[in-house]
Amino acid sequence: MDLHKLRSFMKKVNERLETELSQAIVKLHAPQKIKDAMAYSLQAGGKRIRPTLLLATLHAFGKEMKYGIKTACALEMVHTYSLIHDDLPAMDNDDLRRGKPTNHKVFGEAYSILAGDGLLTYSFQMIAQDSTLTSEQKVKIIELLAIAAGPEGMVGGQVADMLGEKQELSIEELEYIHRNKTGKLLTFSAVAGAIIAGASSEQIDLLEKYAENIGLAFQIRDDILDIEGKEEIIGKPVGSDEGNVKSTYPSLLTLDGAKERLHYHTNLAKDMLRDLNLDTKLLEELAELIVVRNH
Amino acid sequence: MDLHKLRSFMKKVNERLETELSQAIVKLHAPQKIKDAMAYSLQAGGKRIRPTLLLATLHAFGKEMKYGIKTACALEMVHTYSLIHDDLPAMDNDDLRRGKPTNHKVFGEAYSILAGDGLLTYSFQMIAQDSTLTSEQKVKIIELLAIAAGPEGMVGGQVADMLGEKQELSIEELEYIHRNKTGKLLTFSAVAGAIIAGASSEQIDLLEKYAENIGLAFQIRDDILDIEGKEEIIGKPVGSDEGNVKSTYPSLLTLDGAKERLHYHTNLAKDMLRDLNLDTKLLEELAELIVVRNH
Repeated sequence: MDLHKLRSFMKKVNERLETELSQAIVKLHAPQKIKDAMAYSLQAGGKRIRPTLLLATLHAFGKEMKYGIKTACALEMVHTYSLIHDDLPAMDNDDLRRGKPTNHKVFGEAYSILAGDGLLTYSFQMIAQDSTLTSEQKVKIIELLAIAAGPEGMVGGQVADMLGEKQELSIEELEYIHRNKTGKLLTFSAVAGAIIAGASSEQIDLLEKYAENIGLAFQIRDDILDIEGKEEIIGKPVGSDEGNVKSTYPSLLTLDGAKERLHYHTNLAKDMLRDLNLDTKLLEELAELIVVRNH
Repeated sequence: MDLHKLRSFMKKVNERLETELSQAIVKLHAPQKIKDAMAYSLQAGGKRIRPTLLLATLHAFGKEMKYGIKTACALEMVHTYSLIHDDLPAMDNDDLRRGKPTNHKVFGEAYSILAGDGLLTYSFQMIAQDSTLTSEQKVKIIELLAIAAGPEGMVGGQVADMLGEKQELSIEELEYIHRNKTGKLLTFSAVAGAIIAGASSEQIDLLEKYAENIGLAFQIRDDILDIEGKEEIIGKPVGSDEGNVKSTYPSLLTLDGAKERLHYHTNLAKDMLRDLNLDTKLLEELAELIVVRNH
């Protein structure tokens, strides 16, 4: 599988997203300093998996990209804010992110906290001001984004992760962390795309399950990469999670067990797509990409 | 003026708000730790000026409190998140807030950052899930809240405040900081009330100007209190702003000049109310309260 269609789609998504995100920051009436701090991390690249997932879902329904691009920007803002706050000295205390100095290393801790706060807040504004959606769609998308990102989602998962540090977790506890810390925002990406496309509740269910499974697969692959990956490729020390005595899929299931589980979730995700009966080529390739990616 | 009507209204608002806020946290499916950290600061009391302003505006239109209570909760969550993040070691590094240990002193810095993030995110969820409002009202209120709280409002004002530290500011620069750092969220409170009440755009304009002026009055009074106030009443060291060589209204205008400006804005606020021709007794008393309050 050469993932040809997906790679060309991702290129288009990335270009469009760069432009939209950069315009979104430029037009803000705010001190230049906070705009710079927000833009620095937004433009630090990354895989743009969430926007791709949202826009590939729209594509499956034959809907144009323009209907999802603002929500895609909002998603990337929420994801970026979470990385900025995660990297803070009081949290993971990371100096590097994707091979570049982290936000607080460049702008200092205080501006970094505020850049995160600003991105999170602005994400809701982006959706509320999207002229391509109905008010009902906006309210639903805002509600789901807040649930996915807040205490019942990402924030709650982060807290559970911190509470579970330095202790042996059960596989259920580990899965709870990942379902919330990273899973719910990924699931939101697909569901938001479905809502924008006017999907039926059955279709939304299938896409939700698809995204849940690729979310878990994504995380398992992360854990595997952490052991197998090469430092120069992923840009952070290999095996750093193991050094912290942190529970991971390989540590709980063995490396082979983790790989088996990775394929289990990837296959389950593809089953959901088959039941959808839509043009889901991109979404299939996205599930595939997660298995083969090396960073 | 004994502010009798306002005080009894505020008592009712506070009681209702305590109940609603406490229920909002209890029902969250999230780790207890983050719920505790969020609830700790939400329940730390405070003047609840913003919810009062919103609900007093609703009252001026003869609308029941229930239509505004969720947005009032959201407002208090946003205000509380901003206090939690402001108090962090990397920001103001405050150990006490309203005479109690600050959030990070009790829960540690990492959970405190996340409690703030959680409250901010949850505030948008509260509004999106409010069953008493139309979708159009929710979208408008969410948009305005994001603008008031984000880079073009509170976050931007905080950044401008930090950039202006330890230098002599012009009165215009000081006013820019206050209009954004505290003013826009106060203005939002009145405007949100007006939107919920179905006010005309002329009425919204008048209420917006009223709130802008009491917002500035509020801040000037804060600066005056910082000099005149007694430590045991306000719960933080008197004159701490002056110790930091920070520009304040009294430092730029003299104490008498600041008092004059306080009355100027209070009177302007009352003029707006007169033009409204509604039952604005509560809003008048609120403007008055700001002048007489001693904490």
